[in-house]
Amino acid sequence: MPHLLVIGGSDAGISAALRAREVNPAFEVTVVVADRYPNYSICGLPFWLAGQVSDWRDLAHRTAGELEGQGIRLLLEHTAQAIDPAGGTVAVIDGNGRSHHMAYDRLVIGTGAVPVRPRIEGLDQPGVFFLRTMADGFALERYLTAHVPASASVIGAGYIGLEMADALAHRGIEVTVVEYLPSMLGTLDPSLGRVVSQELERNGVTVRTGVAVEAITRREQRLIVAGSEGLRLETDVVLVAAGVRPEAGLAAAAGVQTGQKGAIVVNQAMETNVSDVYAAGDCVETYHHLLGRNVYLPLGSTAYKLGRVVGENAVGGEARYAGTLGTQVVKVFDLVAARTGLRDGEASAAGLNPRTVQTETWDHKVYYPGAHTLYLRITGDRVTGQLLGAQIVGHRTAEVSKRVDVVAAALFNRMAVEALNDVDLSYTPPLSSPWDAVQMAAQAWSRSA
Amino acid sequence: MPHLLVIGGSDAGISAALRAREVNPAFEVTVVVADRYPNYSICGLPFWLAGQVSDWRDLAHRTAGELEGQGIRLLLEHTAQAIDPAGGTVAVIDGNGRSHHMAYDRLVIGTGAVPVRPRIEGLDQPGVFFLRTMADGFALERYLTAHVPASASVIGAGYIGLEMADALAHRGIEVTVVEYLPSMLGTLDPSLGRVVSQELERNGVTVRTGVAVEAITRREQRLIVAGSEGLRLETDVVLVAAGVRPEAGLAAAAGVQTGQKGAIVVNQAMETNVSDVYAAGDCVETYHHLLGRNVYLPLGSTAYKLGRVVGENAVGGEARYAGTLGTQVVKVFDLVAARTGLRDGEASAAGLNPRTVQTETWDHKVYYPGAHTLYLRITGDRVTGQLLGAQIVGHRTAEVSKRVDVVAAALFNRMAVEALNDVDLSYTPPLSSPWDAVQMAAQAWSRSA
Repeated sequence: MPHLLVIGGSDAGISAALRAREVNPAFEVTVVVADRYPNYSICGLPFWLAGQVSDWRDLAHRTAGELEGQGIRLLLEHTAQAIDPAGGTVAVIDGNGRSHHMAYDRLVIGTGAVPVRPRIEGLDQPGVFFLRTMADGFALERYLTAHVPASASVIGAGYIGLEMADALAHRGIEVTVVEYLPSMLGTLDPSLGRVVSQELERNGVTVRTGVAVEAITRREQRLIVAGSEGLRLETDVVLVAAGVRPEAGLAAAAGVQTGQKGAIVVNQAMETNVSDVYAAGDCVETYHHLLGRNVYLPLGSTAYKLGRVVGENAVGGEARYAGTLGTQVVKVFDLVAARTGLRDGEASAAGLNPRTVQTETWDHKVYYPGAHTLYLRITGDRVTGQLLGAQIVGHRTAEVSKRVDVVAAALFNRMAVEALNDVDLSYTPPLSSPWDAVQMAAQAWSRSA
Repeated sequence: MPHLLVIGGSDAGISAALRAREVNPAFEVTVVVADRYPNYSICGLPFWLAGQVSDWRDLAHRTAGELEGQGIRLLLEHTAQAIDPAGGTVAVIDGNGRSHHMAYDRLVIGTGAVPVRPRIEGLDQPGVFFLRTMADGFALERYLTAHVPASASVIGAGYIGLEMADALAHRGIEVTVVEYLPSMLGTLDPSLGRVVSQELERNGVTVRTGVAVEAITRREQRLIVAGSEGLRLETDVVLVAAGVRPEAGLAAAAGVQTGQKGAIVVNQAMETNVSDVYAAGDCVETYHHLLGRNVYLPLGSTAYKLGRVVGENAVGGEARYAGTLGTQVVKVFDLVAARTGLRDGEASAAGLNPRTVQTETWDHKVYYPGAHTLYLRITGDRVTGQLLGAQIVGHRTAEVSKRVDVVAAALFNRMAVEALNDVDLSYTPPLSSPWDAVQMAAQAWSRSA
């Protein structure tokens, strides 16, 4: 029986294993999982830490038993040490330190990513945390429970930083977010980042932007976070959320080519440069549907798609990854911020000639109770009229995420901005307008020409 | 100065006038409005009658002043009596009974629709209402205020019927809905119609399906609604909501061709068979994007799109209506029901070979509070794999309407069911899953082959 070996038990690895079993049951499938938590939703850790999810076990997308029920062999607490592509084996060490070699016919590398360690002094002392794995989550939870901190500092205002600011505030902790960039949530344009800042402040979170943290020091029971612009915070706990970088050392050591930020280079079939070795998830470069080239854009939703493609191909299929659109969404307190496609600056950097227009419209007819403002930025190509991207920020009840997904579906099909007006979108006064907010933005874009 | 005359001051007529002014200010634009309420959201009447909208004036999409500010001349309380295409004039009568002839260079007919009068005895007595115009709304409101009815019967379980059941219940009135078809909301498949029934019943509304109302009679202060299956309701007020039919008599009398259900026949440029005479809105046949032929499918959102096309073309443009997808949505109590594209039976009737699969999934990761079941039916072509349509029912917070719009955008681009999985949709645990509910349904559809 041919053997598919998967290294990594998170989104990409498990998706690959499931898809492989679905497509070609002739393959034996083994997944090497570094910890005891295969197929856990690490995206859910902030909600567990907030106390909104009562049992961390609920974060499992599927139980180990369910995975095994699909014919997947799980090696928990096993770590891959080295890949030998010539011999077709992987050296694996188990939780008791015993090592052995596992033969593979096809190998999928799904080793994921690790947190970026910014150049800040004092990251390795008690009370300073990163958040990536279940173990990271457990460590932070233990600290929060044991010390009941009154205040916390979050370094980095990306998705994890903002979700954790929300989570810590939800626990009654006074939170300061420090961001190096000039505005919150650097994946959005600054005018929308300011809307996010206002939501944080409305909920009692202090926001410091354009500030570089330089050092964390201890003074008796407290931590001092110091940096540029006169930053000096006395705080009880620090979370560093400065993004992630690919974990591709194992692959690189085996001769697998790496590229941007050290991520594994794959084609749209998720093949590496090494025969029978595939890779997927946060450890790989991702093909961008609009740019037509690879970028590094690690996201859980992308990992699932890559995993599905690689799982099919590793067992004989011919799937192709259609490419990311960079679609992303985050909920921060009562606000949802989402984007898809390219922002103005990103499009310019890619040699396009973009124009971006910002609109503010109600999410539904304002006469019906509960209408909220949608802040919408739409980007299109001045020359061709092609839709390039959209960013939307609005209340959590305003269907922000699926509105961005309507734009994502349009981008996937390379539609023109103006053509958005041709799509028959649903309308009822409590939920929308005869022209949806996305279409009103498209019309504003056309008028601005 | 060339003159564009528009007959009808609702969605299509006003959209046409606004677009004409935007595209070609060289045209003088006049709109003949039968009542005093141009550009009112008659879709909002149920919410005003519910008491959720406090002032009916808020139902105006734009005020008369705003329309006049766009250079549009409004003739309120004017009725078009006859069109003379040979002479290029329309006979108009004003509120005081004075008639005159207005010359046009281009004419847009947007006379809308009127309620269907089902074959029921006793429709013309006090306490029996239809709901279409602002005047209809005022009449019903006066009756409800004056008589404070304890119970109401709604005949017809389409959009207006269900919104009014909700509205009347909101006022504390005991409501019974009687529907001729075997399930609620005949625009959905019966298995989803049952979910809607349950929501009505959960909110104290009595549901009677598969029942034909035959007569309404008066007995002292009350009305008796009698019909098949032993129906005999004693009630205080009756709303008849049995759909609409096109108001195309004026056009037909002038030699304009009519077709399905008597609706005006137009091409995708919104031209009728008569030179310089265009038509749009609920009085016309609508081109269907998937069927490639005209249907009769009157909807407010469609009227806006048709109006925009006709307004552009009537003043020299070359716009084409891309076609309806039949996208529709309604909120009933805490439930939202939406659809787009073709249902299984509709696709079969069109000579296609459809397969429909129903899934039940959470709208977002169930570990995060507030997850609700989404009931999703997806229809695709067995032979080609092409996506044909989707129906979704779920809680009002579950982004049902914009999820259906994601499918609409896919349908517009004639995507395959399986290709839905390639679209990079947004994910965050409080709002969705790594594979969106729509994609999980697509995968279930593919597996069912």
